[in-house]
Amino acid sequence: MLGDFNVRTDLALEAKESFGEEDVKIRGVRIEEETDEEREIYTTVVRIETENGARTMGKPVGTYITLEAPNMSSEDENYHREISEVLAGHLRQLLGEEEKTVLVVGLGNREVTPDALGPQVVGNLRVTRHIVKEYGRASLEGSAHPVSAIVPGVMAQTGMETLEIIRGVVRETAPQAVVVVDALAARSTRRLNRTIQITDTGINPGSGVGNHRNGINEEVLGVPVIAIGVPTVVDAATIVNDTMEHLIDTKERRQSLREQISPQLNTMFVTPKDIDETIKRVSYTISEGLNIALS
Amino acid sequence: MLGDFNVRTDLALEAKESFGEEDVKIRGVRIEEETDEEREIYTTVVRIETENGARTMGKPVGTYITLEAPNMSSEDENYHREISEVLAGHLRQLLGEEEKTVLVVGLGNREVTPDALGPQVVGNLRVTRHIVKEYGRASLEGSAHPVSAIVPGVMAQTGMETLEIIRGVVRETAPQAVVVVDALAARSTRRLNRTIQITDTGINPGSGVGNHRNGINEEVLGVPVIAIGVPTVVDAATIVNDTMEHLIDTKERRQSLREQISPQLNTMFVTPKDIDETIKRVSYTISEGLNIALS
Amino acid sequence: MLGDFNVRTDLALEAKESFGEEDVKIRGVRIEEETDEEREIYTTVVRIETENGARTMGKPVGTYITLEAPNMSSEDENYHREISEVLAGHLRQLLGEEEKTVLVVGLGNREVTPDALGPQVVGNLRVTRHIVKEYGRASLEGSAHPVSAIVPGVMAQTGMETLEIIRGVVRETAPQAVVVVDALAARSTRRLNRTIQITDTGINPGSGVGNHRNGINEEVLGVPVIAIGVPTVVDAATIVNDTMEHLIDTKERRQSLREQISPQLNTMFVTPKDIDETIKRVSYTISEGLNIALS
Amino acid sequence: MLGDFNVRTDLALEAKESFGEEDVKIRGVRIEEETDEEREIYTTVVRIETENGARTMGKPVGTYITLEAPNMSSEDENYHREISEVLAGHLRQLLGEEEKTVLVVGLGNREVTPDALGPQVVGNLRVTRHIVKEYGRASLEGSAHPVSAIVPGVMAQTGMETLEIIRGVVRETAPQAVVVVDALAARSTRRLNRTIQITDTGINPGSGVGNHRNGINEEVLGVPVIAIGVPTVVDAATIVNDTMEHLIDTKERRQSLREQISPQLNTMFVTPKDIDETIKRVSYTISEGLNIALS
Repeated sequence: MLGDFNVRTDLALEAKESFGEEDVKIRGVRIEEETDEEREIYTTVVRIETENGARTMGKPVGTYITLEAPNMSSEDENYHREISEVLAGHLRQLLGEEEKTVLVVGLGNREVTPDALGPQVVGNLRVTRHIVKEYGRASLEGSAHPVSAIVPGVMAQTGMETLEIIRGVVRETAPQAVVVVDALAARSTRRLNRTIQITDTGINPGSGVGNHRNGINEEVLGVPVIAIGVPTVVDAATIVNDTMEHLIDTKERRQSLREQISPQLNTMFVTPKDIDETIKRVSYTISEGLNIALS
Repeated sequence: MLGDFNVRTDLALEAKESFGEEDVKIRGVRIEEETDEEREIYTTVVRIETENGARTMGKPVGTYITLEAPNMSSEDENYHREISEVLAGHLRQLLGEEEKTVLVVGLGNREVTPDALGPQVVGNLRVTRHIVKEYGRASLEGSAHPVSAIVPGVMAQTGMETLEIIRGVVRETAPQAVVVVDALAARSTRRLNRTIQITDTGINPGSGVGNHRNGINEEVLGVPVIAIGVPTVVDAATIVNDTMEHLIDTKERRQSLREQISPQLNTMFVTPKDIDETIKRVSYTISEGLNIALS
Repeated sequence: MLGDFNVRTDLALEAKESFGEEDVKIRGVRIEEETDEEREIYTTVVRIETENGARTMGKPVGTYITLEAPNMSSEDENYHREISEVLAGHLRQLLGEEEKTVLVVGLGNREVTPDALGPQVVGNLRVTRHIVKEYGRASLEGSAHPVSAIVPGVMAQTGMETLEIIRGVVRETAPQAVVVVDALAARSTRRLNRTIQITDTGINPGSGVGNHRNGINEEVLGVPVIAIGVPTVVDAATIVNDTMEHLIDTKERRQSLREQISPQLNTMFVTPKDIDETIKRVSYTISEGLNIALS
Repeated sequence: MLGDFNVRTDLALEAKESFGEEDVKIRGVRIEEETDEEREIYTTVVRIETENGARTMGKPVGTYITLEAPNMSSEDENYHREISEVLAGHLRQLLGEEEKTVLVVGLGNREVTPDALGPQVVGNLRVTRHIVKEYGRASLEGSAHPVSAIVPGVMAQTGMETLEIIRGVVRETAPQAVVVVDALAARSTRRLNRTIQITDTGINPGSGVGNHRNGINEEVLGVPVIAIGVPTVVDAATIVNDTMEHLIDTKERRQSLREQISPQLNTMFVTPKDIDETIKRVSYTISEGLNIALS
């Protein structure tokens, strides 16, 4: 059972899988799957509809869309363009029809490669709010959302909670929606860098490579918060736990062993050696998805 | 006269020099000079005391301390340590005796070398606010100021005025003082990268390499704002103007020529080829000055 | 006359223009111009065919192709794709028909924004030599050139001449052609960041933002050397000289004034404030041109 | 026995420990230990003196000095200065008395944080060869070694073996000694970022975060090669193996389990979340050690 192993996953998809049997039904949770064979993009929508479902899944009520694209780390530019377009479609749906001012927040630490996804996405973003303010909305072609963006940094660099910075900026600039982009922890190395999760529940405490201490969501910011996440690491403790799970059959022995395993593992993560190239490509794909959705 | 040539300088010292004769007295402006022969550090304190003085100088009422250290771009670490200590002394005086929470803001664009001073200073800063919040003030040795820090980025990257971001963060985290660090424009190439200006007037509109559109000062933030600046560029238009000044004797011809000179020059700056090494060294010297002053 | 003013330009196009009248004929120099109205790309081919022409132009015998694209710093991706394709066409012609191993060298200092063009081009390049060595030529689709790449750094960082590093790598890995990419100095701010020069003469002493001390060309490397350059700076001394030229009519007075102008200007450059965005876009355009040409 | 578990360690100290009992004697291997209680620096010198010792240890004949400094990732600058001085002392001994030209090579990938140690060390190094060549040896104060430096990049970026680049540069510039700096893999998370290994055997195939395919040593370069390494990662497969070791008692079952564990683990590493700060501090400590030793 989830929780038994303190196994951490930021993916609703994996939370669901942890219940074992493929077609187990969880009360208050609806799941739809769609396979785009031609483009090799697999979409799963997990809708947590009740507080009961939320408790069982360990995630808040809301919609969790997962795109799985096995070749997402490949070099093929056309393939990336297709993922960007699918992503843009989901973003448009979550953002709603009418034009909105949108603040994009690139969470994470730009100095730690697998945590630099958010900062790199912001680096490729088309930012337009200042142009609209100066020259009017007509200065952007078509019907575009005025976009602002910030890379708040991490607590070790700023001495502040990320939430404090974002809340200050939101109060001062009053965007109508916030999109946060963050690197996530998955349970399985199999999902790393080939999965994008989009959710309207924002960021929740304990999630992200750097483990946010506070939630960043509509409740605390007062405007809708869409989160885009890509799993780029597995917690080191998770990998060891998962190995043990196959080897040890009694719950008691597992518990006792976990206590022996170096507590240092909790401050460590596992990531692929070519993470630099992956982050570069995937962040570009997400920036393009945002650029398409917001213009 | 200053203004005649649209010559831009962010240094009070140069504003004063533009009046020509060395010992001209300006009403409402007091000047003290001090020479530390041994350490080769020359200190000038310009005190603008009245609105009249402010008008004449083109700078707000307040104190402007300028350290000139000819070898500031050299590699000598001990020399840098000495500058850091002199800087720390001035900062302590401007900040006052009692312990304060301080927010350090690294202005400028980290992607443009001569404008990266502020971001690089923040990169070397000892940030402690989160430690104090978690473990109490006793967790820092001695009597230290809890320090937070932010690199807000520039408008082309964020779509927001720098002031909007800083004001939001100040409202949310309520520091008792703000220190902003910025790369400045000088009038003369002679001063580049060997001068530090410290002032209690904050940042004023039109100053900085990137030309801030709004002031960042006590009036708009509600807490004292100390600005630390180092001239790292000269405006391209200024260099050309200064050349002309020597060549053309009538005000009318100068005016007409300025109109012929490419308006593109106004969006360009002049900087030394080894600006990367200089920014690295000088930003380290300033971080150390802040680290000493704030702990 | 060129040289009189010590005016420095790395562009053959500007060297030619310095002779004044548009249709002046220089013996040993042939010029062709082509205008692609639809795509707004202006191509000039300067062929220096004799030693006499070389002396007059102050550039070695060879072919200099200049693409001028006024919107090259714009955000329009499709426009950039078109420039990349035109660039690829010229590169293919200079490289010849048959498959070749190619070493791409990103000259310049990655820490100084306007000099980071070469390093950033290499950062976006598709590098394949190691794949071909491991899996055979069939592992690349189509008929591709095995590509290797290096960013040698600048002398202040390495203590070595760039030529020493490149010559060592060429001797050890034996590429059949070398492509060097470098940021150049133009005479006029008007050409900055909107011009690409492609030449089969390599790099010549004194050229580039960082002023290479040695040539990097077929003579010293033993294989054909194609250079791709984009003017990103104007020498500070050039800007001042050009201003004076309009003001002062006698050669003697100009000479005397030049001597008064700060010699520091010779170690300074002029560049636009938004150089970070420009370098990012233009380097991407060139990488794509190389990726198309080499695969 | 080492090898049974395919456990990878780049540290001679750990290779020795894998033999279990603390005071086991290995024929052909001599070990000295020294404890500097005051400065909390523990030094172990492993001398592999015979081919037999080399086979048993899985490392070439030579001297391996390990400094263990538990507080090496702390912020205390004075402590770092002391480690730099101890390091400098060992380097001087390995380099010998007389003045030598030295090439420092920063191995690893500057884009992947735990692998960026080598590039960051080179970034802080005092490079002097070009000054000596231009102004003579007297231009450096004291008796200094002319120093050159290079960051060759990794194969995925260059398409070349690191060895090819280094051999080319060595042939062209003829240094009298080479110092390579590299991030290493340890067996235990306990040693990460608090251990420096200095050896006169250079780099051996399969070592380093990025797994060098070729040795970089005196045999292939023709001049003495000193390697400085800091373990910054543990192989993901090693962590899982070590966990299993405690759980499973028969060699056969271990073998069978290893085959089930995801082969992806072999391309993954484990590293601490604050690796950015550690790399910054430790690389600065090593640069200072080199700067002291070489001047």
